Amino acid sequence: MPESIVLLSGGMDSSTVLAIAKSKGHDVVALTFDYGQRHRRELESAMKVAAKIGVKEHIIIPLDLGKYLRSALTQRGMHVPQGRSEEEIGSGIPDTYVPSRNIIFLSIASSIAESRGAGNVFIAVNAVDFSGYPDCTPEFLDAFGNVMSVGTKAGREGAPIKIEAPLLKMSKAEIVKEAVRLGVPLELTWSCYLGGKKACGRCDSCKLRLKGFEQAGIKDPIEYEVRT
Amino acid sequence: MPESIVLLSGGMDSSTVLAIAKSKGHDVVALTFDYGQRHRRELESAMKVAAKIGVKEHIIIPLDLGKYLRSALTQRGMHVPQGRSEEEIGSGIPDTYVPSRNIIFLSIASSIAESRGAGNVFIAVNAVDFSGYPDCTPEFLDAFGNVMSVGTKAGREGAPIKIEAPLLKMSKAEIVKEAVRLGVPLELTWSCYLGGKKACGRCDSCKLRLKGFEQAGIKDPIEYEVRT
Repeated sequence: MPESIVLLSGGMDSSTVLAIAKSKGHDVVALTFDYGQRHRRELESAMKVAAKIGVKEHIIIPLDLGKYLRSALTQRGMHVPQGRSEEEIGSGIPDTYVPSRNIIFLSIASSIAESRGAGNVFIAVNAVDFSGYPDCTPEFLDAFGNVMSVGTKAGREGAPIKIEAPLLKMSKAEIVKEAVRLGVPLELTWSCYLGGKKACGRCDSCKLRLKGFEQAGIKDPIEYEVRT
Repeated sequence: MPESIVLLSGGMDSSTVLAIAKSKGHDVVALTFDYGQRHRRELESAMKVAAKIGVKEHIIIPLDLGKYLRSALTQRGMHVPQGRSEEEIGSGIPDTYVPSRNIIFLSIASSIAESRGAGNVFIAVNAVDFSGYPDCTPEFLDAFGNVMSVGTKAGREGAPIKIEAPLLKMSKAEIVKEAVRLGVPLELTWSCYLGGKKACGRCDSCKLRLKGFEQAGIKDPIEYEVRT
């Protein structure tokens, strides 16, 4: 079985990618970063999901960049937007953007992959029902793939680490259906940008997730403060 | 003064880049990674050099990837090549290659730069007297620059973080002369891949450095086990 690294945040999307990689016969190593995100619930979810779906190894990398990165996800002084409409979510780059986040995650993942001889890195970026982050687009993935080709030994030898983004062109509703089909433990996942006892239901991430469940005609098993 | 991040390892090259950035009027933030390198002497050198040349801030990021990365620089079980000829150094990628190292360093540096509004990241890559690392070439820098353009908010807004590599096309002898001209405290720098009391004089890095000093007609002020 080919060994692959799956970037796992603990959210619905990356948990689904983990299940997709396994369903395609990959021997999966999950990789999670503890990067000072405000919502540490995500980390607990990542551990539970990896254990439930089953992985060869779950690597958790402490990456204490929180105080250096300007983002509502890492800085307590910044406000996580809530209650935005679908149109607002679709326009512009919100304060929850973390500069270069996926570039950092992919570069460390590819470094570990090349070191251990794994050929692929799976990432749960999505360019349909997403928050407009520039590091979640096909152009970004192409550009990063080019870095892998020219800037690594594996690439120079003709076998660059392949970046796989199986959710790239799926809607949230399609992701929900795929998650259910593959038996992803959705009750263990955490997508909310805040770290309350229940998901807030009002941040962009909760709203996109709830919309996906609604359009899929499936009830989201996690608890929300409000379902909007 | 424009604020810039300078990747500083503590070696001769990055210390020279720090001096170049300052000489061009940049307000410099030095950034050093503690990534499990065997030669921790480098870190001490980085701190001394930053203090001596003078920086606005010196950020040291712990990045404990050593056990996951296959490289003679991070794994004690691997051998750092010594005594190689100039031809051998110039051919192929040696075991001291750390997969995606500069990709990781540049992505974190650009994330911090974008977060604090700095416009440039300086890196001491060199494609003339170098060890053949694929992440030290003009093609790599172009590819990474493209990632900055398409994959970041700053890039999308037309002002991507600019990656500056002032040593890219300089020979080691030219770097030595530039370092002397700018008053770089070369006696504080550490380029050896090993962490002995004196530089070994036989690893690729020592050999390239010694060759540079010899061709520049200048005596290297640091102590060596042997000068070959």
